[in-house]
Amino acid sequence: MKRILINELEENKESRIAGFANKIRDTKYMVFVILKDRSGFIQVSIDKEKNKDICNSLEGIIAGSVLEFTGSMILSEYVKQGGKEFIPSTVKILSSAEASPLEENANIDTRLDYRWLDLRSEKNQLMLNVQSAFVEGMRNHCYKENFTEIHSPKLIKTASESGSSVFEVKYFDTKAYLAQSPQFYKQMAIASGLEKVFEVAPAFRAENSNTNRHTTEFTSFDIEFAYIDSYEDVMNFEEDLLIAGLSNVKEKYGDKIKELFNQEVIIPAKPFPRIKLQDLYKELEKRYEYKIPEFDVGDMNAEAESLTARYAMEEYGHEFIFVTDFSKTKRAFYHMRENDIPQGFDLIWRGTEITTGAQREHRYDILKKQCDEKGLTKDVEFYLKFFKYGCPPHGGFAIGIDRLTMLLLGIPSLKEEMFIFRGPNRLEP
Amino acid sequence: MKRILINELEENKESRIAGFANKIRDTKYMVFVILKDRSGFIQVSIDKEKNKDICNSLEGIIAGSVLEFTGSMILSEYVKQGGKEFIPSTVKILSSAEASPLEENANIDTRLDYRWLDLRSEKNQLMLNVQSAFVEGMRNHCYKENFTEIHSPKLIKTASESGSSVFEVKYFDTKAYLAQSPQFYKQMAIASGLEKVFEVAPAFRAENSNTNRHTTEFTSFDIEFAYIDSYEDVMNFEEDLLIAGLSNVKEKYGDKIKELFNQEVIIPAKPFPRIKLQDLYKELEKRYEYKIPEFDVGDMNAEAESLTARYAMEEYGHEFIFVTDFSKTKRAFYHMRENDIPQGFDLIWRGTEITTGAQREHRYDILKKQCDEKGLTKDVEFYLKFFKYGCPPHGGFAIGIDRLTMLLLGIPSLKEEMFIFRGPNRLEP
Repeated sequence: MKRILINELEENKESRIAGFANKIRDTKYMVFVILKDRSGFIQVSIDKEKNKDICNSLEGIIAGSVLEFTGSMILSEYVKQGGKEFIPSTVKILSSAEASPLEENANIDTRLDYRWLDLRSEKNQLMLNVQSAFVEGMRNHCYKENFTEIHSPKLIKTASESGSSVFEVKYFDTKAYLAQSPQFYKQMAIASGLEKVFEVAPAFRAENSNTNRHTTEFTSFDIEFAYIDSYEDVMNFEEDLLIAGLSNVKEKYGDKIKELFNQEVIIPAKPFPRIKLQDLYKELEKRYEYKIPEFDVGDMNAEAESLTARYAMEEYGHEFIFVTDFSKTKRAFYHMRENDIPQGFDLIWRGTEITTGAQREHRYDILKKQCDEKGLTKDVEFYLKFFKYGCPPHGGFAIGIDRLTMLLLGIPSLKEEMFIFRGPNRLEP
Repeated sequence: MKRILINELEENKESRIAGFANKIRDTKYMVFVILKDRSGFIQVSIDKEKNKDICNSLEGIIAGSVLEFTGSMILSEYVKQGGKEFIPSTVKILSSAEASPLEENANIDTRLDYRWLDLRSEKNQLMLNVQSAFVEGMRNHCYKENFTEIHSPKLIKTASESGSSVFEVKYFDTKAYLAQSPQFYKQMAIASGLEKVFEVAPAFRAENSNTNRHTTEFTSFDIEFAYIDSYEDVMNFEEDLLIAGLSNVKEKYGDKIKELFNQEVIIPAKPFPRIKLQDLYKELEKRYEYKIPEFDVGDMNAEAESLTARYAMEEYGHEFIFVTDFSKTKRAFYHMRENDIPQGFDLIWRGTEITTGAQREHRYDILKKQCDEKGLTKDVEFYLKFFKYGCPPHGGFAIGIDRLTMLLLGIPSLKEEMFIFRGPNRLEP
């Protein structure tokens, strides 16, 4: 007999189910096991008199153990678990658990020490499935649009891109570094004639900071495509991509998210509002008396992002807003510029930046000049060569999928959201 | 006007196309450009008399440059490129190329130095698209079967699993290592109650060897699922997974693969043949007078794999064959054993092992004993804990997607097949 899921049980039909024993309650005449699988819960009701064998087998078994029952489900008005209970005829102990060391109200660090137990909660199970569905929706959009999925190397020769914190790897007799992003390689794919590429892969940042937004390793959903006319094409694509992801999540888990996280999955309307940074500064000052600090002029900061989301909601009733026209001093050298203005954007969602995107500079001479300006030419010489022998105009962006899920579900920190978090002090489990 | 692909052109309809200039030929009265985009080629025919402006713009432009034309396609019996040519009314130089440094018959190392130019060939473009389609097909099968996609950390605390060659990373004031596989973490996902998980991600091996089968970084398609009855369930799932991948490839690119690689994409019949190692040894000896060397007894080697594929083809007319009942000394400690025989398999395809899979030992005490036996307990203490507090029976496997594509297309080496190869002496581009 094939094992079926609890939510597939039919009344009075001999079936086989298996899952974790969520609770075991021993009463005078009955033993009750609340059995949990990925589809839900059911009460297994064992009559001590009639099912001595089963009771004997369950002797000493505690919650957390994994049990398999054959038997049948009956409807019962006395049972809380959806009015259903399971009357077993056999039991098999698939795994006998020790008592969980994780207490109900443990702090986040203890919870991370026992992450596999922490993840057993209904909310955390949903969280992981939501992230999977979000990425599924976005990826299927890419497939539909004839993108090619690439897998670029994470071991690279030079500490690249921004020159900032990269991890160093002992590589035989030499050194390598861990890629901070697939940026250079997805652009290489464009130079090689693949017109539309995406990659979903880990990215590494050796930042010694402990905030809710930072981790040393995260999963990046990267997009790059050619023959665009401007970064408008890139923003348009990102709108469709996010709508595809959110639609898949809403369809599969919208109600459950409402129930467990009290969050609404909103499919955003197109086009998302767009505003130039200088105009945004004026709005933030006028509406919220917020003036960007000297240090951040030409850029955003966390407070500005939060207020920008508020502005987008008040003015447009929209959760998303694109901000454009950043200062070239605050943007990567490879963003194309027109009249000295980077042809790119940040996308803000629910108070946080989730993407930086841009049209890239594909013309070798101009790219080299912009690179010289930032003093990076020596580090990225291998990259500049990609543009010497012809390269189509192109643009793209990246989305951190953990941050995305965190914002969608209103989870306060990446520590709680990621399958397994990595930070300066966290390499286990 | 929106840019369209060359294979979308309609006769006599004003259109905009763009791509690489594959060849430019200047004749007495005409200039001919063979333009290439991801859909194909077309000859752009420019009359020197009628289109002086276009000719002037193309002055000094060489092959490899990226050009955009507006104009219209006409049918012409004089043109080789599918009897079609494009008569332009405007041209735009999107990117002006220097002469390619990559000569036609360059050796593989030079080709890798200029990988982005090497990848422009029709065969290499197809190769990357085939790999993408293969993974798409397999991934969609996982989605359909309600698997959850996970993203496990690549930075880990202990040099794990086989104790063999791992890369060491400078991690702030301490050390970390690069994961050789997500094995431990996909099993952690099972212990956390996710019943079916998959991951597609890089894996790292610090092997200082230069063979056609080895690379220091590759992409692994990993599967793990719970509530199996035996490793038979795992083999059955892998059959369906590969059929899904191959079917997607055949549908999208079967004809093109035949044309460019002279390879047939064969959708394998179920079940794949299965044979026990001891029986296989007998067959290889009887049929091919091959005797496994003492050193490899209980295991396979490259020659045995190749002959095994021959045996599968001769005996079953099948490209695939599962080999089971390896010696426990040759298998990982976490493979479940029954009567001391590891409950796992290798899958051979076209002469090469593409997968090792198994039912895992999920019972803490037995697992710890098997781990002690191999002297690994100290290294994997964190992993053993996953099984202390309840864990369902489960199994899984991994497939290297580069090797898969290599075998499918009959490409002789990973160097040629991977988007960007990494080896002991190769960290660029």
